[in-house]
Amino acid sequence: MNPQSATDGRPLLGPPVSALAEDPKYRAAVVDLLGVLAAGELLAFERLAADGSLAPSMADRAALGQMAVAELRHYDQLVERLATLGADPETATAPFVAPLEAFHAHTAPSDWLEGLVKAHVGDSIGADFYREISRFVDADTRALVLEVCADTGHSAFVIERVRAAIADDPRVAGRLALWGRRLVGEMLSQAQRVAAERDALSMLLVGGPGSVMPGTDLAEIGRMFARLTEAHSKRMSELGLAA
Amino acid sequence: MNPQSATDGRPLLGPPVSALAEDPKYRAAVVDLLGVLAAGELLAFERLAADGSLAPSMADRAALGQMAVAELRHYDQLVERLATLGADPETATAPFVAPLEAFHAHTAPSDWLEGLVKAHVGDSIGADFYREISRFVDADTRALVLEVCADTGHSAFVIERVRAAIADDPRVAGRLALWGRRLVGEMLSQAQRVAAERDALSMLLVGGPGSVMPGTDLAEIGRMFARLTEAHSKRMSELGLAA
Repeated sequence: MNPQSATDGRPLLGPPVSALAEDPKYRAAVVDLLGVLAAGELLAFERLAADGSLAPSMADRAALGQMAVAELRHYDQLVERLATLGADPETATAPFVAPLEAFHAHTAPSDWLEGLVKAHVGDSIGADFYREISRFVDADTRALVLEVCADTGHSAFVIERVRAAIADDPRVAGRLALWGRRLVGEMLSQAQRVAAERDALSMLLVGGPGSVMPGTDLAEIGRMFARLTEAHSKRMSELGLAA
Repeated sequence: MNPQSATDGRPLLGPPVSALAEDPKYRAAVVDLLGVLAAGELLAFERLAADGSLAPSMADRAALGQMAVAELRHYDQLVERLATLGADPETATAPFVAPLEAFHAHTAPSDWLEGLVKAHVGDSIGADFYREISRFVDADTRALVLEVCADTGHSAFVIERVRAAIADDPRVAGRLALWGRRLVGEMLSQAQRVAAERDALSMLLVGGPGSVMPGTDLAEIGRMFARLTEAHSKRMSELGLAA
């Protein structure tokens, strides 16, 4: 995938790859970024696999399983990169396990459709956010972030299933729209917790004194959230749901 | 893998491969066998993946995930074979989902060590049983059964972890030995339920009138259970546990 196109032609603001070796603060930020991504992928693997038990058929159950396997593969890639950077994967992922587990505990789907919407919407918002962040990191890190955030082809499967369910019983649309809002709320609340606790990670976005991270200004951060929200609304309406 | 060696040189009693096309009762038995195996692999995938949340480290968590992925790959192979035989995978797996879910619901591990013992002991007893059954089926079916029952290399991982935990705190041995007994009890009770409901499957072992399935006599079935029990005891003592 071409990183330029993945960030929609917006300028790439990350330092050169050499900054990983030369700037300890930048390296810490990248280790945090890879750590949160890795922990997110491993937990998503577990939850997606377990949510298969909600599926109406063995084929759907296995399809959710295949989505889960893609997440575990991403976890492996991220851990490998952490090891290459000389970072301990256990230490790098540790700060993010509790917020991620809280997110999953608060958004356990009660049925198959909620599980599908969570798999698709949750995954996609996360991927959009990390793609935005990828503008602020070096080319090597960016390539890996974009790779693990690429759509693994599950969108079409989810859209088809959810639209069919709504066609079958239009009342489910209201319930699933509320569910989508709850997912976003929980993600924001856990993301805020992470941002407050992880200075290095936040610095990627807001910049840090004496660091190679230029970050960006508040206006641009505002525009970034507007882009994330807009993409989410577009996804919800593809599913036949109000955002 | 060599089927002869996998059944310890005992005679292979299965009909020729052509019986799949020529004998509807035999075909039904094989479809049942592939169906119970496929359902077992898919549910094992889900439960192993979910049990990762009990792991003491992300590396252990991911290791359990990798074991789970091997089960999903087996599921795919079994479903492919069912489709080749012209059997609908949904119909073939359906009768076995409830007993398998009951087994997992009654044996939800309460901690990491119970999860490990379940992954290893449960999987191995199942594999031993299906390997015994493989003597009574045609060569093509046997090759697939032996392939999906081959140890995916997790034994060494589990043995090392459980022995280290016992060395650390010898009291866990008693608790895990009881847990092993409970696993066997639950497996037997669900297997009995399946055998009572699925005539075709049972006929593989006991034979059927007017069928190509010769089955075997009660004395041999007794010896088979003795072999399964013995192998289980040996595995428990490898883990440092009384059977």
